[in-house]
Amino acid sequence: MALKDVRSGQRNEQGIETVLGLLKQQFGERFQTGQAFREQHAHTTTYLPSQLPDGVVFVETAEDVKAVVSACAAHKVPVIAFGTGSSLEGQVNAPSGGISIDFSRMNRVLQINAEDLDVVVEPGVTREQLNTELRDTGLFFPIDPGANASIGGMAATRASGTNAVRYGTMKDNVLALTVVTANGEEIRTAQRARKSSAGYDLTRLFVGSEGTLGVITSVTLRLQGIPEKIGGGVCAFPSVKAACDAVILTVQMGIPVARIELLDEMQMRACNAYSGLSYAEKPTLFVEFHGTEQTVALQAEQFTEIATECGGDSFSFTANAEERSRLWKARHDAYWASRALAPHLNGLSTDVCVPISRLADCVVETQADIQEHGYLAPIVGHAGDGNFHVLILFDDKDPEDVARAEAFVARLNTRALAMGGTCTGEHGIGQGKMSFLEQELGGAVDLMRSIKKGLDPENIFNPGKIFPMTMSLPNA
Amino acid sequence: MALKDVRSGQRNEQGIETVLGLLKQQFGERFQTGQAFREQHAHTTTYLPSQLPDGVVFVETAEDVKAVVSACAAHKVPVIAFGTGSSLEGQVNAPSGGISIDFSRMNRVLQINAEDLDVVVEPGVTREQLNTELRDTGLFFPIDPGANASIGGMAATRASGTNAVRYGTMKDNVLALTVVTANGEEIRTAQRARKSSAGYDLTRLFVGSEGTLGVITSVTLRLQGIPEKIGGGVCAFPSVKAACDAVILTVQMGIPVARIELLDEMQMRACNAYSGLSYAEKPTLFVEFHGTEQTVALQAEQFTEIATECGGDSFSFTANAEERSRLWKARHDAYWASRALAPHLNGLSTDVCVPISRLADCVVETQADIQEHGYLAPIVGHAGDGNFHVLILFDDKDPEDVARAEAFVARLNTRALAMGGTCTGEHGIGQGKMSFLEQELGGAVDLMRSIKKGLDPENIFNPGKIFPMTMSLPNA
Repeated sequence: MALKDVRSGQRNEQGIETVLGLLKQQFGERFQTGQAFREQHAHTTTYLPSQLPDGVVFVETAEDVKAVVSACAAHKVPVIAFGTGSSLEGQVNAPSGGISIDFSRMNRVLQINAEDLDVVVEPGVTREQLNTELRDTGLFFPIDPGANASIGGMAATRASGTNAVRYGTMKDNVLALTVVTANGEEIRTAQRARKSSAGYDLTRLFVGSEGTLGVITSVTLRLQGIPEKIGGGVCAFPSVKAACDAVILTVQMGIPVARIELLDEMQMRACNAYSGLSYAEKPTLFVEFHGTEQTVALQAEQFTEIATECGGDSFSFTANAEERSRLWKARHDAYWASRALAPHLNGLSTDVCVPISRLADCVVETQADIQEHGYLAPIVGHAGDGNFHVLILFDDKDPEDVARAEAFVARLNTRALAMGGTCTGEHGIGQGKMSFLEQELGGAVDLMRSIKKGLDPENIFNPGKIFPMTMSLPNA
Repeated sequence: MALKDVRSGQRNEQGIETVLGLLKQQFGERFQTGQAFREQHAHTTTYLPSQLPDGVVFVETAEDVKAVVSACAAHKVPVIAFGTGSSLEGQVNAPSGGISIDFSRMNRVLQINAEDLDVVVEPGVTREQLNTELRDTGLFFPIDPGANASIGGMAATRASGTNAVRYGTMKDNVLALTVVTANGEEIRTAQRARKSSAGYDLTRLFVGSEGTLGVITSVTLRLQGIPEKIGGGVCAFPSVKAACDAVILTVQMGIPVARIELLDEMQMRACNAYSGLSYAEKPTLFVEFHGTEQTVALQAEQFTEIATECGGDSFSFTANAEERSRLWKARHDAYWASRALAPHLNGLSTDVCVPISRLADCVVETQADIQEHGYLAPIVGHAGDGNFHVLILFDDKDPEDVARAEAFVARLNTRALAMGGTCTGEHGIGQGKMSFLEQELGGAVDLMRSIKKGLDPENIFNPGKIFPMTMSLPNA
């Protein structure tokens, strides 16, 4: 099924009209229906065309969220939660219209529990804001998906990023959520305790549910102590296979590497061109260690041995912060360097994740596919997790080029699934990957549908995401 | 509501009779209905009276499980999965009768993926068996709940134990499951990749669902490298508060302690008496570090500083394996030492978990409660997680003493909940804690019920656990 088909939705015009009136009355200036607002809340970093909501509510409290959800539930109108719009698979599009809930004003850090290494935040807090507010406590929130995403959005898409290899993903770092459910009430998924065996794990059911089961109103997060010392370095390898072997050995030896990123030859070429650098244009690992002076030095030494054994060039390493930033510059600029390869084209950032033993195979086969079809498509991987991204550049105005890009993504996913991998390590299903979810998990998707029907019988929460719009909206 | 009321169930006699006939025909000698078999499969380490299943199937393959579930589903007969029977809250009781699925013959290690640090096992594999089979790989499975439980059972109850502080609980260590669902089909919850954002997190929904949503037929687990060096030690403190302060500082400083166990004064007294030892009868921390020669020594040094700062006695530490076993003997014998305080009484092992900052308060208040009411009830805690157990000794033949024990558990749970804690850190809800689940999570339990209804509409999977028997069994 082509993407454009699974993305179509039907509108409940009468319900929407009623809700627009109700929300205008209740929220006044905090409810906006102007074109600019609507466009802004469908326009994301995704390659998928925008589908606009009918209005945007700027919520300030959980009570506001309850009011919006209650109104929408009563009239069977879609509700789409909006953090910062940095999702990549069309998660904030509104295929059936409806109301976008903007969380940018619901961005308070509610409770810092330094002794317990946790924090309670509203969903609109961004990760950079959180780390700024935490600075005096000696603690930090480690998950770093690249974008300055909102914590609510990161929880909803089960985000991770460069240092998941050490600190885990959102599933490992969310301790509890409050959520407004389909009946307009707020529930708490768990207490603040570090662990629990009390009933079904609703926290982890909502983490990664992409706004389809309810609207998150607060997030309790685990924190980490800011490392005394951070060291980082760069090492080029003769082949992707050699680089991946170094990653596998690093993980197997239990070196608690904080980040271990793989950039392929095309990505390194793009980075050199973009920033006037002179890295070797070979598969390269960017590595970071967190610890004390002693343990960082020890880890660097162990990694150097592994890199040498795997045929790597000499490992440029430093524990000096500025020097480390300079060394890591190519990694930080990877996205924009890639886009600069063809500034007139759009970029489709896709991701898969495979067991680490298959990472080299999957990357090498994907590079061959890219070369065979003549794509511009650099590869960046969170190698320690077996997760990698391809940014494929394509002309979104040319239907044939769109089809070519979609066909590439389909082949990539089929390849990853055949290796025991998943069609998305961290971007989520959204609109873009619905067919691959079926391909990946088959009958398990029926269970997901049962859960969706049980928790959101009228399909008001972010309809047309994760599952195609099979549950059509009844008219009010 | 008294426990005996929520534990009662109604029987679907006609359905049970039909299924007994079907299974006898299909499984022959592998299906047993004798009293001894039935008793063995309801008799667990729980304090709750046994409720016998009507028959026991010794399954050998997933096909067997599908056959049993299909027969039971067709005739609306309960299905109770049975690992080793080491659950503590009545999880394998059969309040409405039905069929116990015994997994002891479905105990193969199916796949060791050493490069990926994972393993695929059948549910009947026990954790000790698994570690024996892994010995040559340099890898191990870290979760240690004390009992030699089955991996299927550990997944079903979201088990953890002494080293969860370092390695996490079952929720962190199960990568994927296969499960037979209510329609008798087998689904896979996830691929083998380290992380995924593909749809709802069914893996973590089944982990901790206590057999109420389906029957697990295989478990994919993360493994860890066997540490090069293990060091351990013991340190007595002047008060529970001082010991807990040392734990908090250890966790805050990011010392990757592998185990940090708190034994209270009564527990230490029991251990001395049981094993003829001469530990100080003061709150005591038992600590273990995993790493290299260097890092273990470093961690021990850091912990010594913390312990001294918190007023601890000198920290007896050793990196010698035999010496460490000797030092840790009191911890290993804690359960039997406690039972020996009053060999004629039964023991009720209960558990709560609070944010670590409240651990001292919760333990101290609980000790005061124990003293005030004159219970024999030693305390052992997985202090790094804020999780602790009380083994309350009581006469299970004396209804008044049973009521006294139940009242103590109720006060303990209320105390933990008021501190932001949970009514169970690792034992689960089973039959014993259904009322506390409501008290802890309120409206969220309705969502759990919706999920249960969606995935198990006829309530055949372990009915009367987690939720009272409100969904009565229709007659066939």
